[in-house]
Amino acid sequence: MATECFRITYDSPECDARLGEVITPHGTFETPIFMPVGTQATVKGMTPEEMERNGAQIILNNTYHLYLRPGHDLIRQAGGLHAFQGWYKPILTDSGGFQVFSLSSFRKITEEGVQFQAHHDGAYHMLTPEKVMDIQQALGSDIAMAFDECPPPDCGYEYAKKSNKITLDWARRCKKHHATIPHPTTPGQLLFGICQGNIYTDLRAESTRAIVDLDFDGNAIGGLSVGEEKNATREMVQLACEIYPPTKPRYLMGVGYPEDIVEAVAMGVDMFDCVVPTRYARNGTVFTHTGKLVLRHAARKEEFFPIEEDCECYTCQNFSRAYLKHLFQTHEMLGPRLATWHNIYFWQKFTRNMRAAIRENRFLSWKQAFLEKYLSSENSDH
Amino acid sequence: MATECFRITYDSPECDARLGEVITPHGTFETPIFMPVGTQATVKGMTPEEMERNGAQIILNNTYHLYLRPGHDLIRQAGGLHAFQGWYKPILTDSGGFQVFSLSSFRKITEEGVQFQAHHDGAYHMLTPEKVMDIQQALGSDIAMAFDECPPPDCGYEYAKKSNKITLDWARRCKKHHATIPHPTTPGQLLFGICQGNIYTDLRAESTRAIVDLDFDGNAIGGLSVGEEKNATREMVQLACEIYPPTKPRYLMGVGYPEDIVEAVAMGVDMFDCVVPTRYARNGTVFTHTGKLVLRHAARKEEFFPIEEDCECYTCQNFSRAYLKHLFQTHEMLGPRLATWHNIYFWQKFTRNMRAAIRENRFLSWKQAFLEKYLSSENSDH
Repeated sequence: MATECFRITYDSPECDARLGEVITPHGTFETPIFMPVGTQATVKGMTPEEMERNGAQIILNNTYHLYLRPGHDLIRQAGGLHAFQGWYKPILTDSGGFQVFSLSSFRKITEEGVQFQAHHDGAYHMLTPEKVMDIQQALGSDIAMAFDECPPPDCGYEYAKKSNKITLDWARRCKKHHATIPHPTTPGQLLFGICQGNIYTDLRAESTRAIVDLDFDGNAIGGLSVGEEKNATREMVQLACEIYPPTKPRYLMGVGYPEDIVEAVAMGVDMFDCVVPTRYARNGTVFTHTGKLVLRHAARKEEFFPIEEDCECYTCQNFSRAYLKHLFQTHEMLGPRLATWHNIYFWQKFTRNMRAAIRENRFLSWKQAFLEKYLSSENSDH
Repeated sequence: MATECFRITYDSPECDARLGEVITPHGTFETPIFMPVGTQATVKGMTPEEMERNGAQIILNNTYHLYLRPGHDLIRQAGGLHAFQGWYKPILTDSGGFQVFSLSSFRKITEEGVQFQAHHDGAYHMLTPEKVMDIQQALGSDIAMAFDECPPPDCGYEYAKKSNKITLDWARRCKKHHATIPHPTTPGQLLFGICQGNIYTDLRAESTRAIVDLDFDGNAIGGLSVGEEKNATREMVQLACEIYPPTKPRYLMGVGYPEDIVEAVAMGVDMFDCVVPTRYARNGTVFTHTGKLVLRHAARKEEFFPIEEDCECYTCQNFSRAYLKHLFQTHEMLGPRLATWHNIYFWQKFTRNMRAAIRENRFLSWKQAFLEKYLSSENSDH
């Protein structure tokens, strides 16, 4: 039986949004939550101390990358991911499935598992559901994810149907194996299941129902935001939220942009992760309440004021857009750092404001006001 | 007449080392001091807040780079270097002379000044002593440096003699022009002179005496540590320290390694700057009390302990060598950041310990013990 790891603290009377708390071996985090991504056991450019200052309550690490480098055995020896990277709050590890399918140049899927070539050195590896559970238990994350197949959005109905079967079989094996591992780095690690089914209503529903039956600690929605139409994404999220029981946390993987998060929260999704804040920042784009801002743009040159006047982040409290432009123009490491700092803070503030709006029964009006302002200058010369 | 900007607080009875304080428009710093280099208005990878945490009391910015990008007029508009980069303690700007001679692909020196091609875009520029003073006053540093010619170490006696004349003429013009600028960004900016003379005793002595006569606020030793023999460096520093009056701060430009700093301090040098801590860090080499340590080295793989057990820096307090190796191996930005943090701290701690040893009349024994330990494993498999 699944652990009692989720407490709903408030149910919105306006829609399916809710406030909750997820209880993990390394503490509790509030939902709805956004999890910044620290692919290789580091949120690119940020220290754990800075992540805490920014209000991050949980981060995500990537199993695929850490399995390859430095290896899960080394991380186990180091005392697990928390000790290794100096972050002692909750950590979620993904299953590696998504990366196997998106990063490796060669892969061969069998019922047993998947053979693939590593993206960085071409070496061959084999991952099975059992091995992925062993790896995540060695890494010692607080939340492990079941191993799934992530077919491309245009794989077609027949492939998606076949793939659904594999994912479900793997989910069963993950659940079974996870319960039997004798020496986990983090005792009490939670395990979430993932539904697939592409954008086919019947397949998605079938997959979601099957995951519910397996009684995981939490339920994730996988295989979306990978290139399909936005309407299709929304429809699938809605479908999954109706099938996944409200008593367990719902996690929409790989999402995303603020405009997508607010809609999913209204449908009852609790958890999100995405590389957008960090990846955009490294390329010099920061997010504001009036949309995106390109720091290299000529207009920044003499803007001796911060990214956002009323932002409390370290970057906005101390540096001007003109300085940030200079840093990006001269390829200084501090540029990506300060942009990342702002973006991480922006997402945390955004979810904090969203939680406050839910609690105060003004989520729908807050959402509308947020979107109007945020999308207003999307296509401006920013 | 020069400003009264230097107070000797303690004279070592053991040697020519002394403790002092330099008073600048943005506060006082202790000597002997090491100034971390922030070439483009940022100490690479560090925030001003982190520099303060590391105990930095003054940083150096490069006039050549800032004149080219983003331009001194823009920095003046921003309120000067302090406001621009968010560092409100003392700043020293070099004169740009060294970079004109070391970085640009084309240069033509006349009595008037030097014409050169910028290293980053090939555009032609002209710098004169007057212009260099204007630039540094626009930048608003606390300490400006006179414009000098830095001939290569192998330029020969005749060239060095001719060059000495130019540097001296430029020094006179700098002194004169500096006093007449109507609207400096930082009122009360100090101006230091620089002696040249290569490694020729008579030329070095002549240049040093001429700089003394011009009565600058402080006196620098230039054109050393550019490839000449270590004995020659030492001889020239000794010579300059004997000629430069003890009542003014002495600054050995571009030095350097701890083993060179301790020797120069014993001769009476007060100020140092060098890119070594930051540049080595970015390449994955950190400094310890037992010498250098290469973070990418295979031996680091399972070293689940910090760079130095008794180091109080953020890096050593939170991360293992194994984690740092992982960060460098996977090209993560946090690797250079954490290595830089440690190295900056190491240099600050080193100079702090040196000042304590001077005050407690145990500088020479401290120096010997430091060097024995520090140089012990220089050639090990580190």
